[in-house]
Amino acid sequence: MNFASKVKTYSSKVNLCIGLDPVWEKLPEHIRKSEQPLLEFCSEIIDKTKDIAVSYKPNLAFFEAFGSKGWDQLKKIVSLIPDNCIVIADGKRGDIGSTAVAYAASIYQNLACDAATVNPYLGGDSIEPFLQNPAKGAFILTLTTNPGGSDLQGLICEGEPLYIHVVRLARKLNKSGNAGLVVGATKTKLWQKILETAVDMPLLIPGIGAQGGDIDELKSELSGYSSTAFVNASRSIIYASSKRDFGDRARIEASKLFERFQA
Amino acid sequence: MNFASKVKTYSSKVNLCIGLDPVWEKLPEHIRKSEQPLLEFCSEIIDKTKDIAVSYKPNLAFFEAFGSKGWDQLKKIVSLIPDNCIVIADGKRGDIGSTAVAYAASIYQNLACDAATVNPYLGGDSIEPFLQNPAKGAFILTLTTNPGGSDLQGLICEGEPLYIHVVRLARKLNKSGNAGLVVGATKTKLWQKILETAVDMPLLIPGIGAQGGDIDELKSELSGYSSTAFVNASRSIIYASSKRDFGDRARIEASKLFERFQA
Repeated sequence: MNFASKVKTYSSKVNLCIGLDPVWEKLPEHIRKSEQPLLEFCSEIIDKTKDIAVSYKPNLAFFEAFGSKGWDQLKKIVSLIPDNCIVIADGKRGDIGSTAVAYAASIYQNLACDAATVNPYLGGDSIEPFLQNPAKGAFILTLTTNPGGSDLQGLICEGEPLYIHVVRLARKLNKSGNAGLVVGATKTKLWQKILETAVDMPLLIPGIGAQGGDIDELKSELSGYSSTAFVNASRSIIYASSKRDFGDRARIEASKLFERFQA
Repeated sequence: MNFASKVKTYSSKVNLCIGLDPVWEKLPEHIRKSEQPLLEFCSEIIDKTKDIAVSYKPNLAFFEAFGSKGWDQLKKIVSLIPDNCIVIADGKRGDIGSTAVAYAASIYQNLACDAATVNPYLGGDSIEPFLQNPAKGAFILTLTTNPGGSDLQGLICEGEPLYIHVVRLARKLNKSGNAGLVVGATKTKLWQKILETAVDMPLLIPGIGAQGGDIDELKSELSGYSSTAFVNASRSIIYASSKRDFGDRARIEASKLFERFQA
């Protein structure tokens, strides 16, 4: 199935994506003692939430930090996610020509993820290798949630903020309907022009929960938008408890969010 | 030793950095048959050139493409590079807060590299974790060599090209003298304003050799600049031969470049 069609299988406009960010210090103690702690932790989160979330977003940094062992566990984790979910490898890669091809191979073939997050600073030819296969998709960083995000993204370039130029670039690259945008939930006030320009590209939205993005504002901004949004929550779900009940507590938090998205 | 002092140990203005980009299809046949092909290949390149190059730049994509096995070999390769050389992990990472901290830990602690390449699109707070330890340095992508580089980098933002804003941001972050810039050799015509603004930050310069950057132009532009440049060549050195003599041929090509830098 191509990526655009897979995105269309989700009938909701606002869908839950769970971020898999296994930060060592935050893992429950009994998990830290196990042989494959990242795998143990993430597999329980997936098992308890896979009928609620439609997407998972492993953050590559937290696996890379464990070197080859982290990479091995990540590969096993991806294989545990049901096929009807979209797995977004959050690595924010961006490099030229053959290097971008190697990153795309790493994410789409070696790890078997459905999608990647990519950084636009190196321009269109650094993103194209992530869009070449219509079965795979790329979410292009547009407007990020961090305070420093505005250092460059908010600069007015030839009459428009830099992030609007990114949206236009994404539109140009979106020949197979498999390009999306990363747009932070903490900056909904800036969304109107982004959504107008994006027309129908799927969105990956970080920044609710621990980062403070408002769900009602987000839903109201998206009400007239024609494509699908994957709204990511990580910490508020996966670290709802630091004890043995972390999986059950993650399920409760995921359900609450799901209900707020549907309401 | 802190990073700024280590950079100053190189008395030349223009220094050779060898890019370790082990692209599978280009590896000599006998290497492809070995058990740890990336390690075999890179260790011979390092062994034959370590008295000529002062820096090596492993490109993380080509190791990641082999999953955990690639990561293991990369770690061994880094440990083979002499301590007086600077090892630059070329991963072009860029992410927010705790994620950037994890990437920095992966590169500086797990892999034990001296420096990283980082992407500025997410702003200052995404770069700071790479500069926190004065013993380690970060080269910030400024002006890249690829055709698409100008899609965003060349936009005029509030009176100046975007890449000049990046240089100013880098200056602001350079509190420990460990921030550098990545500036492509194919675009020397745009360097003047960059170097004026950079004042004294070290440069990592890709784009000579296979990519067509002119060495004489590069040297002439750098003649009045007060810091050190690491000029990277990958393919023209490491793939000078696809046979058993690839190490010796790499040495010959590295020597030729070294002499042109010194001339």
